[in-house]
Amino acid sequence: MTVELICVGTELLLGNIVNTNAAFIAEQCAALGLSMYHQSVVGDNEERLSESIQAALSRSDIIILNGGLGPTKDDLTKESAARVLGRALKEEAHTKERIRDYFSALGKKEITENNWKQALVPEGALVVDNQNGTAPGLIMQEGEKHIILLPGPPNELLPMFKTDIVPYLNELQPGIITSQMVKICGVGESAAETMILDLIENQSNPTIAPYAKTGEVHLRITAKAESEKEGKKLIKPVVKELKARFGMNIYTTDESVTLENAVVDLLIKNKLSIATAESCTAGMLAARLANVPGVSETLKTGFITYANKSKRKFLGVKKTTLDKYGAVSQETAREMVKGTIFFTKADVAVAITGIAGPGGGTEEKPVGLVYIACQVCGTIAIQEYHFGGNREKVREQTVVAALTLLRSCILEYYSKKHFGKEE
Amino acid sequence: MTVELICVGTELLLGNIVNTNAAFIAEQCAALGLSMYHQSVVGDNEERLSESIQAALSRSDIIILNGGLGPTKDDLTKESAARVLGRALKEEAHTKERIRDYFSALGKKEITENNWKQALVPEGALVVDNQNGTAPGLIMQEGEKHIILLPGPPNELLPMFKTDIVPYLNELQPGIITSQMVKICGVGESAAETMILDLIENQSNPTIAPYAKTGEVHLRITAKAESEKEGKKLIKPVVKELKARFGMNIYTTDESVTLENAVVDLLIKNKLSIATAESCTAGMLAARLANVPGVSETLKTGFITYANKSKRKFLGVKKTTLDKYGAVSQETAREMVKGTIFFTKADVAVAITGIAGPGGGTEEKPVGLVYIACQVCGTIAIQEYHFGGNREKVREQTVVAALTLLRSCILEYYSKKHFGKEE
Repeated sequence: MTVELICVGTELLLGNIVNTNAAFIAEQCAALGLSMYHQSVVGDNEERLSESIQAALSRSDIIILNGGLGPTKDDLTKESAARVLGRALKEEAHTKERIRDYFSALGKKEITENNWKQALVPEGALVVDNQNGTAPGLIMQEGEKHIILLPGPPNELLPMFKTDIVPYLNELQPGIITSQMVKICGVGESAAETMILDLIENQSNPTIAPYAKTGEVHLRITAKAESEKEGKKLIKPVVKELKARFGMNIYTTDESVTLENAVVDLLIKNKLSIATAESCTAGMLAARLANVPGVSETLKTGFITYANKSKRKFLGVKKTTLDKYGAVSQETAREMVKGTIFFTKADVAVAITGIAGPGGGTEEKPVGLVYIACQVCGTIAIQEYHFGGNREKVREQTVVAALTLLRSCILEYYSKKHFGKEE
Repeated sequence: MTVELICVGTELLLGNIVNTNAAFIAEQCAALGLSMYHQSVVGDNEERLSESIQAALSRSDIIILNGGLGPTKDDLTKESAARVLGRALKEEAHTKERIRDYFSALGKKEITENNWKQALVPEGALVVDNQNGTAPGLIMQEGEKHIILLPGPPNELLPMFKTDIVPYLNELQPGIITSQMVKICGVGESAAETMILDLIENQSNPTIAPYAKTGEVHLRITAKAESEKEGKKLIKPVVKELKARFGMNIYTTDESVTLENAVVDLLIKNKLSIATAESCTAGMLAARLANVPGVSETLKTGFITYANKSKRKFLGVKKTTLDKYGAVSQETAREMVKGTIFFTKADVAVAITGIAGPGGGTEEKPVGLVYIACQVCGTIAIQEYHFGGNREKVREQTVVAALTLLRSCILEYYSKKHFGKEE
């Protein structure tokens, strides 16, 4: 089946905000095996909205409209869709009740008149409760076509889509679509694609779709089957094959787990405390670890030692080392990580030193040269990296590389059966 | 004049990437006073591409196509546009030369055959050199319509747009569009809008458009005039009026300057060194300061003291203070900032302690409660904040608040004529 997305909002046409909703909905639809050939953005204008809806109805099976469901006069998505489909808007008691409850939970007694506009529902529409706002989602079926209206704010859209829209879309298709994510770190995009070229070329069901992220590759395996159980059965051997090929570079098969999640889980599981020492990334690694709620179980301390003097004073890097090898060197990285362990008594430490640019590069040590040292319970690993791109890209890639190195050092340490710590 | 944007790429339809180009182009067009009523995304498919181009030609004056100019068979934007306009593709010597130069600069001797596809140019098209890649931009005029083809990679698109496309678009319109950015921190979005409601309501030329960012409001003033000089003349009194209303909350009138840029410049200008101590943000503030190239002139050291023990050991926060007031308190923030100055000997320090959530909140100290302490040459300011949103939002808002507080503390310090430091 084909699906088409219409995002509604003048703020998108003015470039006021980036359309992250489109990427989210598109990825979700792709995971459901739906084909999306068109996305469009229109403003809060009834004529252009109606034209867009009509064009979409003429060529696509499912039309998702996102945004323009707010309480103000400017919000016209519902009104336009209802008019195109020739449906009257009627007040719906259940939604009205929910709006009242929502405001009273916020402690507001007075509800301004315009808010009741959100309780108006096109005749025959299925109402999808909004757990995080007042505009409900609406689903209308018109012959073979399905028109789905969803709220614009991402914190309302995302949970509603996952909880209610995915099952609805899944029911529309012959067979159930089941998908499974396999997330890989430490393998480049083209290397990963080459490693699975034979699988991708001969695939029909399930299919494998690679998504390249900074320093990571995500593979989504999608199967179509009679039931979810059948789908999972089809997916299982593919995941097994991918595990055989990528081994420990697969850090999760859970869609909601990020690389920092996986690393923090590994630290907590092994009861390891961690400390960081960062130069060019200046706190980005620690900040990323701290994306994970509950990180305080493992993350205790971090140092940002941008100046050489700080590397000496707070990490005990020797002046002779800095003079002889420079701040961006294997030797300095080694002393930074050792100093971090010494001063913090953490079980694990990561130290980063590099040249993020645009200045500071030389022929011998160009912009993008980074050293990362990782110490896990006495064992130190140091890696040299050469990253491309601007200052921002170099720093982003460095953080992912640090997480990847940290993860592999911990896994290697335990695979060598250093069980001393756990007893 | 109306402008319409067509972004081309299957990766957008699959949700593989977020369409940041659309936001960039839309904002640039808005700044030029062009009206954008439609954006669309289509894949690398000649039929759908041609349909989209035809629909756009039927309703818009300027059509910008972005992406699909690559060297592979999949890249069909140029071919589709040429076909719709009935123009033949011919090899262009200058572009061919540039492609050869580009690869030889990369040290590649062999250029694969498909790369020469990028030297094919529709008859009568204006070629815009690509300074960062091999696909040139192309501009075609067809009667009153203008069709502009631009490369997809942002690092190729952005400089080309600013250098070549903006002047071209400016020439198309009667009068020249001049715009000026005014960036504000420390004033909420709705407060800022209320403060300029009278200006916005009565505006015609120049116009003021507010853009809300996390913790910031950007106002773009746009004037239409006979010349850039005339435009600037129209804009000047508006900027003056905004300066009178927002005072020192305006941190720059330069579009390319970020808040961290402004703060780092202020530190460097006043020859102040800075050190940071972060708990809940765990390095985000230091990392953001280090977005600015040349930050090493001022940023020396940062501490991430996630654990109470770290706050005591590395910042000298007293056990009794932590026991009596808790880690998230004015008192702890004060001792953190004093300790940071003491141990680093920096001129300026910022300390952050807060509850980012989702756990850790209590009735008395809910999620979103943050204390930021800022010390500038002996003077300490401490602020309490209550931020809404999830963990990520709380941390983001905290960093912007810290930059804003830091900036205002430095400005206040010097406005009180503490000139000791400067002599």
